[in-house]
Amino acid sequence: MTPAAGTAAAGTATARTAARRAALAGLLVENGLDALLVTDLINVRYLTGFTGSNAALLVAAVGGDDGEQNDQSVFCTDGRYEVQSAVEVPDLRRRIDRRCDLALLAEATGRVGFEAGAVSVAQHGRQRAAAAAGVELVQTLDLVERLRAVKDAGEIEALRIACAVADQALGDLLESGGIRPGRTEREIGLNLDERMRRLGASDPAFETIVAAGENSAIPHHRPSSRPVARGDLLKLDFGAMVEGYHSDMTRTFVLGPPANWQVEIHALVELAQRVGRTAAVVGATGGEVDSAARDVIIAAGYGPQFAHGLGHGIGLAVHEAPSLAEGAAGIIGAGMCVTVEPGVYLPERGGVRIEDSGVVRAASSEPGNVGPGYQTLTLTSRDLLVL
Amino acid sequence: MTPAAGTAAAGTATARTAARRAALAGLLVENGLDALLVTDLINVRYLTGFTGSNAALLVAAVGGDDGEQNDQSVFCTDGRYEVQSAVEVPDLRRRIDRRCDLALLAEATGRVGFEAGAVSVAQHGRQRAAAAAGVELVQTLDLVERLRAVKDAGEIEALRIACAVADQALGDLLESGGIRPGRTEREIGLNLDERMRRLGASDPAFETIVAAGENSAIPHHRPSSRPVARGDLLKLDFGAMVEGYHSDMTRTFVLGPPANWQVEIHALVELAQRVGRTAAVVGATGGEVDSAARDVIIAAGYGPQFAHGLGHGIGLAVHEAPSLAEGAAGIIGAGMCVTVEPGVYLPERGGVRIEDSGVVRAASSEPGNVGPGYQTLTLTSRDLLVL
Repeated sequence: MTPAAGTAAAGTATARTAARRAALAGLLVENGLDALLVTDLINVRYLTGFTGSNAALLVAAVGGDDGEQNDQSVFCTDGRYEVQSAVEVPDLRRRIDRRCDLALLAEATGRVGFEAGAVSVAQHGRQRAAAAAGVELVQTLDLVERLRAVKDAGEIEALRIACAVADQALGDLLESGGIRPGRTEREIGLNLDERMRRLGASDPAFETIVAAGENSAIPHHRPSSRPVARGDLLKLDFGAMVEGYHSDMTRTFVLGPPANWQVEIHALVELAQRVGRTAAVVGATGGEVDSAARDVIIAAGYGPQFAHGLGHGIGLAVHEAPSLAEGAAGIIGAGMCVTVEPGVYLPERGGVRIEDSGVVRAASSEPGNVGPGYQTLTLTSRDLLVL
Repeated sequence: MTPAAGTAAAGTATARTAARRAALAGLLVENGLDALLVTDLINVRYLTGFTGSNAALLVAAVGGDDGEQNDQSVFCTDGRYEVQSAVEVPDLRRRIDRRCDLALLAEATGRVGFEAGAVSVAQHGRQRAAAAAGVELVQTLDLVERLRAVKDAGEIEALRIACAVADQALGDLLESGGIRPGRTEREIGLNLDERMRRLGASDPAFETIVAAGENSAIPHHRPSSRPVARGDLLKLDFGAMVEGYHSDMTRTFVLGPPANWQVEIHALVELAQRVGRTAAVVGATGGEVDSAARDVIIAAGYGPQFAHGLGHGIGLAVHEAPSLAEGAAGIIGAGMCVTVEPGVYLPERGGVRIEDSGVVRAASSEPGNVGPGYQTLTLTSRDLLVL
């Protein structure tokens, strides 16, 4: 990359992370905090762009003026990441210290929030001991996670690419005949993972699930040495990680001519999934979206065979807000990215799950906006492909 | 696997985890606890064999009699793992509940320790609310980690295989000409990872480091699109995960005839590494082992260019007790498995690190014991290989 291009790209990235810190500062003011100590590494990445394995960030409750926000916020990492952090976090004051959170607390003042879901009881004890005199440590929950639930255009683009990588890896594997009787679940999973990496994924988004025959009835099955065979349902649940963003897709196929029960539960799950996608609109609660799809399956008499939630947010984490599950009260907003993944599992026979990743769009006349509702980012056909 | 063989293997595995729980029960009695709530998933795996992603374990302070220990301890996981946990944890009472720790605390009694390093402040609040009346929650630190530091024969065998997979993957890659000018760091890293998986690794033990030329001066460099070129030092730091156990090895090569400075720092690091291995004996402190190797590098005038610790324990985690670092007070015991990995890094020129994984043996006349001292499990030559 030429220096000029590098600078332009960095400028865009730092503007994005600065805007996020400014939005967070607004939440801090609302909560009566002077600053937030961010120690969850995914949140640190979201707010700074830093991708290393040890860091903390003290965000000052100073919004609006990015210059002032940058002056008063402090980033810390250890010596291994001195060079990397200078490139990734050029716009914040940086400290180099192995015990990042303690170093930042030693120079903090006032009411300082900490992430109660990300700090262990033992570490909290160390933080209290290290904090400067007069610092009051205050529990907070999900402040940054709330911001992360709504994706900006750059994040949606990263998710779109992560989904495209998964789509193409599966398409290429199917086209090359890589899924056929005699090959093991494990071989097929390794092939999918390798293809995603070669297409630019830094890693699979999670441990790829390849589940054949009776194993497809286990929602979270780890690929085994079982060969796939004629008559099997074959469930693939996998995704790619690109720029830290995770795609997540499930498709279920059948090897050889399908039995009636296989066709029936596949059609049922396909219908429930379509209904779920249609229900995923701005203003609905996660529980309402779940119910819409679940009711289809319950009406067909398979309610007990769908024993997990309908979906979850995706982004820098493979499971994040919002949740689409029974009773979930959170309201879906424009720009939220979620999976929709109903399933029906018949123990010792087989199961079907169909899952897309997508983004919920608001009604809008903006160019490029495809209209309100759920826009799928995973584009592989949902049909019961016969292999 | 035949049913008979399966039963035999399961018997061995459950005997091992039962012995670990009995040893832990002894520590609980010493600490005046009635039980320990184990929520760290690696610790749960160590004590039960369970490999899923959600579980907790309540270990009763009842030692000696395994039957009684099993009767009074309780394992919990969620519905996704009902089948898997029946296979992996056949010897304990099992509960199925999504919020495992809370479910177990609701039926606990007396002084119950919790893992203060593994429970978030927010989760601890939920635990206090869920605990049965009269339960006193008590902070504990590293009780299970202390047991994990000393490996049994089965664990050492898993580590040996994990090391052999890494050795062979590198050997095969070298033999096939996969490391040559023009190939990128990323391509070489992907090749190593793929070969380890094909040789039976469930995954790389951590993100493989391939660092060429000036990048080799960065201790933790992520493989980039930089092609390796003649004159480069090439540092590879990688390992395989087998049965949950992590190997960890670093070798540094040179592409084409080496410059004098490259030969010199490689020889220096090789000497320091040998001295470090020799010092890793039963009874030494981690700090003493670190000093032995570090003094060699300091004497040569490169002290500031070796800015990290000498090594760390390996096992179910890639970094665990004991630490070999400046001032580390923990004493090395027989059966501990540690890395020895000094390095010298010259910014913008290049760096050399040489790392082995190995086990510290006691003096003993047991058959198969190769004698006291550090027995390396990674066997690739440490020579400055010219590619």
